[in-house]
Amino acid sequence: MNIDMIRAAARRLEGHARRTPLLSSPFLDAIAGRRVFVKPECLQHTGSFKFRGGWSAVSALTEDQRQRGVIAFSSGNHAQGVASAARSHGAPCVIVMPQDAPAVKITNTKGLGAEVIMYDRATEDRDAIGARIAAERGLTLIKPFDDPQVIAGQGTTGLEIAADAAALGITHADVIVCCGGGGLTSGIALACEADAPTLRVRPAEPVGFDDVARSLTSGTIQRNPRLTGSLCDAIITPQPGDITFPILKRLCGPGLVVSDDECLRAMNVAFSHLRIVLEPGGAAALAGALYHGDQIDGDTVIVVASGGNVDPATFQRALDITA
Amino acid sequence: MNIDMIRAAARRLEGHARRTPLLSSPFLDAIAGRRVFVKPECLQHTGSFKFRGGWSAVSALTEDQRQRGVIAFSSGNHAQGVASAARSHGAPCVIVMPQDAPAVKITNTKGLGAEVIMYDRATEDRDAIGARIAAERGLTLIKPFDDPQVIAGQGTTGLEIAADAAALGITHADVIVCCGGGGLTSGIALACEADAPTLRVRPAEPVGFDDVARSLTSGTIQRNPRLTGSLCDAIITPQPGDITFPILKRLCGPGLVVSDDECLRAMNVAFSHLRIVLEPGGAAALAGALYHGDQIDGDTVIVVASGGNVDPATFQRALDITA
Repeated sequence: MNIDMIRAAARRLEGHARRTPLLSSPFLDAIAGRRVFVKPECLQHTGSFKFRGGWSAVSALTEDQRQRGVIAFSSGNHAQGVASAARSHGAPCVIVMPQDAPAVKITNTKGLGAEVIMYDRATEDRDAIGARIAAERGLTLIKPFDDPQVIAGQGTTGLEIAADAAALGITHADVIVCCGGGGLTSGIALACEADAPTLRVRPAEPVGFDDVARSLTSGTIQRNPRLTGSLCDAIITPQPGDITFPILKRLCGPGLVVSDDECLRAMNVAFSHLRIVLEPGGAAALAGALYHGDQIDGDTVIVVASGGNVDPATFQRALDITA
Repeated sequence: MNIDMIRAAARRLEGHARRTPLLSSPFLDAIAGRRVFVKPECLQHTGSFKFRGGWSAVSALTEDQRQRGVIAFSSGNHAQGVASAARSHGAPCVIVMPQDAPAVKITNTKGLGAEVIMYDRATEDRDAIGARIAAERGLTLIKPFDDPQVIAGQGTTGLEIAADAAALGITHADVIVCCGGGGLTSGIALACEADAPTLRVRPAEPVGFDDVARSLTSGTIQRNPRLTGSLCDAIITPQPGDITFPILKRLCGPGLVVSDDECLRAMNVAFSHLRIVLEPGGAAALAGALYHGDQIDGDTVIVVASGGNVDPATFQRALDITA
């Protein structure tokens, strides 16, 4: 896993992934007490950065692998990213999703042409279900984060941040990234190491699901005690990956930990002042920048708003809250 | 009023206005029955295309005029565009707003440093109020649409559409534009005439406030019978402008007329599938593309989503409606 793979992924994504800008608003700056730049990956195809990793992985397959097809496990964003990339490449796609995934994510994944197989998180073993189908049909598994080509795709986000920060004259800043298993965070960290080494990448996670923050503190992989009970479904994973964690450990600053309410407030701010739609997990980094400024250094912070696939009922909670 | 003024405005806006992309989603294409590209001016600074016209007008003033300051009448989007441009140029700014403007627009205009003077639409004459203040302080009035430098600024939207359509290989398409007094629509029409003459620009307006559509049909300026009772506050004006109408008449295709409910449905679609926040008036063109496809020619349509400054309560109505 290295920068050359990220640069190669960027070439494969050229003309296919959307190059998202850095958004800003004086109202965000006032709340945060410093300049805030937001990279809205909610505007990416399929509504999250996961399209990048999906495209990178599918486009790196052999023609024979593509013809047999791909399979992924996902509560939603990885599912849509892989499904969309697979369809564009003419590859059959099976997605194994938990029954309690947000309805909008299930509907959209089906709408992107994937075959969706539902399972019950409480009683069924998704790995067993997936392994059986993959074996029967010769499908290639595309993991959500612990896969070099997936990390390479997500890392293209970091190449864009490095280029745009340089254009804006930003030399020192924390880059806060919504973090589940660490695919996006580790990819951005590798890209910044190469192209913007004075930027410091830091993960943001929900309270109670801060496996990466605790792993960074302890220096060893820590697990979350549970996997349900957060609004931030997009970034809840059991533990950092075997590939991602060594990268995070080597390159990242300390993790930020935010509450569900803070994520809802950040969604409200993004609605009012950036006019973008964020999901709770996609707003965790912005929540860190807006409401945990005492843990951030410098006069500028860059935030990756990683996704915007949210059910209307959850979005209404963000509209109802006082930012 | 000509293309050279638009190109000059584009040079003045360079590095200040955001260059918005063309967004798309297979889900929108499926609803519309053709390819749909959306230019999200809700992502523009201050949340609408009005920043372009405001910046163009303020940057075209003499240093002496800028030091005395500017004044504008607006229910909100023009107010914020002018206020933000004035602040960046160090020009004092007075905005005269109706008391029934959306709260978010009033709050944001004040937050951008403008002095806001409220008036009662029913009992007070805003022109008299504005004229008195302008005379007392020597302020320059920046009209919302019937001003060549404002039209020039809005027209930069059309230069970007022409360039992006060419890059996508789009040769023939309707370009549907949310239309109030016609500043944005006429500016885009002039830009497309020069740079993409096979694109056809068409206004979209709310039912009952379709002065431009009726004016285009009759060939003479028609007025709206009333000015209240639409959700689309951003695009309700008494009649097309004296400068804008001749341009619209010469260059535009027939107007599209959409209902408030169709605008709310379009906002819902934009929320779910583009993850952008639109206000009702900013969704009129998308509503036309999605729900009036029988009036549109060709396999591709381009839509300008002109703004996203919407109160949470109105946005909730869009979340509650079935798209």
